[in-house]
Amino acid sequence: MGTAGRIAWIGTGVMGEPMAGHLLAAGVGVVVHTRTRERAEGLLRRGATWADSPAEAADGAEIVFSMVGYPRDVEAVHLGADGTLAAATPPSYIVDMTTSRPSLAERLADRARAVGVGSVDAPVSGGDVGAREATLSIMVGGAESDVEAVRPLLEMLGGRVVRQGGPGAGQHTKMVNQILIASTMVGVCEGLLYAARAGLDPATVIGSVGTGAAGSWSINTLGPRIVRRDFEPGFFVEHFIKDLAIALDEADRMGLTLQGLTLARQLYEQVRLLDGGRGGRMGTQALMLALERLNDAGHG
Amino acid sequence: MGTAGRIAWIGTGVMGEPMAGHLLAAGVGVVVHTRTRERAEGLLRRGATWADSPAEAADGAEIVFSMVGYPRDVEAVHLGADGTLAAATPPSYIVDMTTSRPSLAERLADRARAVGVGSVDAPVSGGDVGAREATLSIMVGGAESDVEAVRPLLEMLGGRVVRQGGPGAGQHTKMVNQILIASTMVGVCEGLLYAARAGLDPATVIGSVGTGAAGSWSINTLGPRIVRRDFEPGFFVEHFIKDLAIALDEADRMGLTLQGLTLARQLYEQVRLLDGGRGGRMGTQALMLALERLNDAGHG
Repeated sequence: MGTAGRIAWIGTGVMGEPMAGHLLAAGVGVVVHTRTRERAEGLLRRGATWADSPAEAADGAEIVFSMVGYPRDVEAVHLGADGTLAAATPPSYIVDMTTSRPSLAERLADRARAVGVGSVDAPVSGGDVGAREATLSIMVGGAESDVEAVRPLLEMLGGRVVRQGGPGAGQHTKMVNQILIASTMVGVCEGLLYAARAGLDPATVIGSVGTGAAGSWSINTLGPRIVRRDFEPGFFVEHFIKDLAIALDEADRMGLTLQGLTLARQLYEQVRLLDGGRGGRMGTQALMLALERLNDAGHG
Repeated sequence: MGTAGRIAWIGTGVMGEPMAGHLLAAGVGVVVHTRTRERAEGLLRRGATWADSPAEAADGAEIVFSMVGYPRDVEAVHLGADGTLAAATPPSYIVDMTTSRPSLAERLADRARAVGVGSVDAPVSGGDVGAREATLSIMVGGAESDVEAVRPLLEMLGGRVVRQGGPGAGQHTKMVNQILIASTMVGVCEGLLYAARAGLDPATVIGSVGTGAAGSWSINTLGPRIVRRDFEPGFFVEHFIKDLAIALDEADRMGLTLQGLTLARQLYEQVRLLDGGRGGRMGTQALMLALERLNDAGHG
């Protein structure tokens, strides 16, 4: 087809909406479906067409993209009774961009192949800013021919599109991404907590440590937010906990014990409990609040 | 004085030698002392003068720099019977650039002040490459007037010279630096171990994850070395363990429990045991070998 065929887009949240918007802006015809129609209004005003279900959206589409919340949502969108693979005329390709289970990506690929549909897993890194600016890093898994068929569209959504292997390899790579972030965030919050207790000015400390061997996106981007007590979500704690749980499950399946990841998950569970149980809606930098509380508890 | 006075330099190891060399190159007169005279030969050939003890090196010097191994060495160099403060004519300033205990930096400053000497703690980040290229980040603690007096020389040694506060603040900032690195390295090695077990190509994975929210100096600089099984030291495990022990002691003194740092130290102790107890002379990226061994042990 190329990129001229009809595209379906399922899931128009903080990530999905700007991503689908890039396709519209490029002149691609887009049919959208999302759980709450109001959240698709912006795209509909810009020329997208509404569909009442994933199956209806997928019907006759060349490629269906999904960007939803949890693996159970991915499963419902593609394998459910009104899922994309149940469309009257199935699509040529399904591309799930949700961060989800690698094993589910493999199962999706198997089920899709059985009905003649190609399947690609393509989770992203870069957050809402990357989605809006089309600078996402897109980690891709799938058969080479499937990946090449959908690559032109992926390249409208991100700045770096790398095939990592067969079905599930994109999701596994995203798990690596989250494993890196998890322990890095523990270090960032412990470092800034130490700095504060030692009487240092944390912003000045970041100026010294952010550019050398201790440097990371986390200390340089989230560190300053922590210093100014801004715990608003760039990335929700509850979504990060979902990702860490998947990574730990997968590690367990592979016989791996990842102690840093295990610790990070335990600490993030403490974040979820903050603010009367609403900590899950904070940004991942709110880990600082949990560490402060844990350290006050022992010495208050 | 400015920068024209005579300078003493104590400690000419992998960091100290190139640093003292920058002063010589700038035309500064340098007297050197180090435990093993052979290690000063390069500097002596370039015009430095030899002294048989720290006291002799410091005698009549404007500023004495020290870049040695452990806090006990710092103590001996400055407070010992033939230490710098015991010089016939004490120096105007002592500047310890070793990564050492914040509390020792405070004590040095007290003892120096008592004999009319200014004291500055100025540990660095950036490793041997930063030392050779004079791009070190130098984290400075000391009275403002002392720091300003020695700043012109520090700026010959590093690209970023930031005063973080009074005596000990430079060392505390270096501890923050090491706390950040410790957990980041745990994440890097766990992530690359997961990648390998999941059948991914770790170098390709780094290409996807190294530039976004999971990006860090560690994954981008040490990650590729791990992938090619290069565990040669940029920074020695045994020195890193020393730093982590200091950081944990200081955290304990402040009533802080840092679980990520505690875990990192435990894992690095496993690295020290590698290769018949010679793991301490490997580079910090050898943490990967310990994680591999821990995970084989449970499933071999």
